[in-house]
Amino acid sequence: MGQDDKRRRILDAAVTVFARSGFYTSKVADVAREAGVADGTIYLYFKNKEDLLIQVFMDTMERVLHRQDEALAGCVDPIEQLRRFITVHFEVAGSSPALAEVITVELRQSAKFMRATEMKPFGRYLGIIARIVAEGQEKGVFRRDIQPRFVARALFGMLDELALEWATSEQEQEMTDLRGQAVSVVLGGLLGTQEHSGQR
Amino acid sequence: MGQDDKRRRILDAAVTVFARSGFYTSKVADVAREAGVADGTIYLYFKNKEDLLIQVFMDTMERVLHRQDEALAGCVDPIEQLRRFITVHFEVAGSSPALAEVITVELRQSAKFMRATEMKPFGRYLGIIARIVAEGQEKGVFRRDIQPRFVARALFGMLDELALEWATSEQEQEMTDLRGQAVSVVLGGLLGTQEHSGQR
Repeated sequence: MGQDDKRRRILDAAVTVFARSGFYTSKVADVAREAGVADGTIYLYFKNKEDLLIQVFMDTMERVLHRQDEALAGCVDPIEQLRRFITVHFEVAGSSPALAEVITVELRQSAKFMRATEMKPFGRYLGIIARIVAEGQEKGVFRRDIQPRFVARALFGMLDELALEWATSEQEQEMTDLRGQAVSVVLGGLLGTQEHSGQR
Repeated sequence: MGQDDKRRRILDAAVTVFARSGFYTSKVADVAREAGVADGTIYLYFKNKEDLLIQVFMDTMERVLHRQDEALAGCVDPIEQLRRFITVHFEVAGSSPALAEVITVELRQSAKFMRATEMKPFGRYLGIIARIVAEGQEKGVFRRDIQPRFVARALFGMLDELALEWATSEQEQEMTDLRGQAVSVVLGGLLGTQEHSGQR
């Protein structure tokens, strides 16, 4: 087994263990047992339990950022871009309920204790949405009275909550169904008229 | 100091401590010190640290459910109902950044370990949104191709994320500004046409 394979296996084991027992009550030894390696082997690849969680996050973000870049490449229609973004988000979440749970639950708890530099990929992820919205506004496709950064955060919160519900439920609802409704509501909001904005 | 005052003071201290150090690394003794009571006093009111977190949640939910009921009483216009719901949500979150942080971060981590009965107030909260949407659909005000339960979860995720951002940031952005944009996007989505829904 190559070094990369072993690192990968340990990361996958960490996801399983964190999702099952929660990050704080999990032990590095539990991850080692799940991965079928000696405790000491973990420390060849990772500094400690916190580092394991950070690397799970970094690894997932790298994958999802790469997939978003691929999905959006060559697409210039802002509506289609948003549709693709939401699709990829749900595909990644749907590929592993345990991973979705670790990212949406355990990471949120730990995020405030992480250094800002470690959260940078999250900022890049929000940046993709904000850029799509800003371009759509420039092209006159989306209404202009909503801040792109607001839409990015609001859309992320929505997708994150839906992924969490999906991951922790019996998954009776189809991911594609959730995706269709999410696309529909978000586009409705961005294409909508400005008459209902704010206070009245 | 009456019994209710002391219980209240311990709950407020728990919010401060959990927001500062995180639920899992906090100790009951830290909460006692913050509240200015003996460790043993906490156990007159609460079973253990988990019970403290559950009671913070129950107490907050009771307050926010009561305020939502009051805000929505006598209001029959679904658009105005949604507007009021979002306003109250942000008012409660904005009244205490520490409380918003505990509810959005610490509780999410603990939710999967709580018994379903303890999460019931959350279901009631989602139920308020779902009912507003369903009534709006019956009245022909909101489009009918979106499930009320989906809107409830999506809207909650959005508000939760925005409250989290607000609570953990420098709070440079006005809560009222966030509120206006949230109302605008959500209503846009619910009032929007159906042509952009789902796959194409």
